[in-house]
Amino acid sequence: MNIGIVGLGLIGGSMAWDLRSLGFQVLGVSTREQTCQKAIAKGIVDDASMSLSLMATADVIFICTPIGAIASTVEQLVPHLSAAAIVTDVGSVKAPVVQALSELWPNFVGGHPMAGTAESGIDAAVRDLFVDRPYVITPTATTPKLAVEKVEEIARSLRARVYRCCPEDHDRAVAWISHLPVMVSASLIAACTSEFDPDIVRLAQQLASSGFRDTSRVGGGNPELGVMMAKYNRKELLRSINSYREHLDQFINSIEGQDWEALQQKLEQTQKARGNFEF
Amino acid sequence: MNIGIVGLGLIGGSMAWDLRSLGFQVLGVSTREQTCQKAIAKGIVDDASMSLSLMATADVIFICTPIGAIASTVEQLVPHLSAAAIVTDVGSVKAPVVQALSELWPNFVGGHPMAGTAESGIDAAVRDLFVDRPYVITPTATTPKLAVEKVEEIARSLRARVYRCCPEDHDRAVAWISHLPVMVSASLIAACTSEFDPDIVRLAQQLASSGFRDTSRVGGGNPELGVMMAKYNRKELLRSINSYREHLDQFINSIEGQDWEALQQKLEQTQKARGNFEF
Repeated sequence: MNIGIVGLGLIGGSMAWDLRSLGFQVLGVSTREQTCQKAIAKGIVDDASMSLSLMATADVIFICTPIGAIASTVEQLVPHLSAAAIVTDVGSVKAPVVQALSELWPNFVGGHPMAGTAESGIDAAVRDLFVDRPYVITPTATTPKLAVEKVEEIARSLRARVYRCCPEDHDRAVAWISHLPVMVSASLIAACTSEFDPDIVRLAQQLASSGFRDTSRVGGGNPELGVMMAKYNRKELLRSINSYREHLDQFINSIEGQDWEALQQKLEQTQKARGNFEF
Repeated sequence: MNIGIVGLGLIGGSMAWDLRSLGFQVLGVSTREQTCQKAIAKGIVDDASMSLSLMATADVIFICTPIGAIASTVEQLVPHLSAAAIVTDVGSVKAPVVQALSELWPNFVGGHPMAGTAESGIDAAVRDLFVDRPYVITPTATTPKLAVEKVEEIARSLRARVYRCCPEDHDRAVAWISHLPVMVSASLIAACTSEFDPDIVRLAQQLASSGFRDTSRVGGGNPELGVMMAKYNRKELLRSINSYREHLDQFINSIEGQDWEALQQKLEQTQKARGNFEF
């Protein structure tokens, strides 16, 4: 079986590398000549090209571009595809992507391998990036069954934990656990650094330790990624952030009203609830 | 020099252990007989007792009880103290403690060694807990200079990073970097688990990874500690949490209004600002 990878960055490059070492013939496409050369030189792909025509012999094609480029890439890809080709993507928001791509190529399955590092680009590609990581497959009522099974089979071969749900459920779940935390965390940094007394700011910077470090980590991440999440998953992010605001207000009310029993109860609930997350 | 440690938990026990191995004569007081025996058996202290009268020969006494017990402990301690004895504490909020204790014992210096683990009690005591950690000393205009210098000298002997500021500045700074993150993080857990669709909750629990894990960590911590922070540092916590709420609203407004440039700018600022924290 031939695998096509369009977009040889951290995700595409890492996926290509693993799949090639599993014995697949892997063909890569990048918009940069240098990336193609590197991918071949490092043994990440069997062949690479800047032209999408290289995908003519691919049986399953992974679109690994930034989310904003997925639809336009598939539009350009379609004329090169063999009739039975399965197309899948790795975008972190699913409903808008799945809707757009299903119209462009009926044999399309949405996917989201939830793995990454702080790095990006072909130089950041690593082996075994997806091992024990969630890989969500998001078919709709019209997605061909065979395509779903094939993509799931490949995801399992990467030793990922494969989940299946509809695009809308995926987007709602990741709003809670991935997109909301970015805004919550960024607001913390923004608030702290709005303190007007420079002596306090300096002291806070000196005294900050693991608690602040962890709570502020994702809010100090890649700004482009944050905007992308908000743009493509806006409705679900707004739903979760508005709910968050209500819960924050309940904490404020307890503290303002010195209702220590209510605060204790809330913190007992959050301590217990956190134990139900699988990390 | 004789050092007294009242309260042989994680902080008191760890401090006693380090100071004893530095050559000080270390005397410990605990409300539990078993803790006294353990502290002696493990070589954490030279002697231990349930009676505060053991502190009669101590030159510097560290009050290492929970914050709510500090003032009542010192009230009971005062009749046993030698005239020149220096008293200090390790409470995580300083203004109310410093005010109460300065009235009980003029030769008092407030202190806050910012170290800890998730454990508590004498069994959690470890060596070198304070190495490279901040240790804030909070004198007021009336604190005897000699007492400040002596406590700072001991803190430095633990190889802590010693800072000096007034109690109010301490409380404002720790509200930002320690107490606010707890409420921000707990509100995140509370909001996520308020999702009414059990399928989404289950999916979120399965998909949650390092981003959610880190952002939710301190909100899933010890509820008693969270209530204590809010109770003793209420005014500063409310100031910081209300500022946080305003910044959160700005993020919500940008997302609601699809003002992606404003969101990008905010996220660029938080990415940059986080780099100024020393962790």
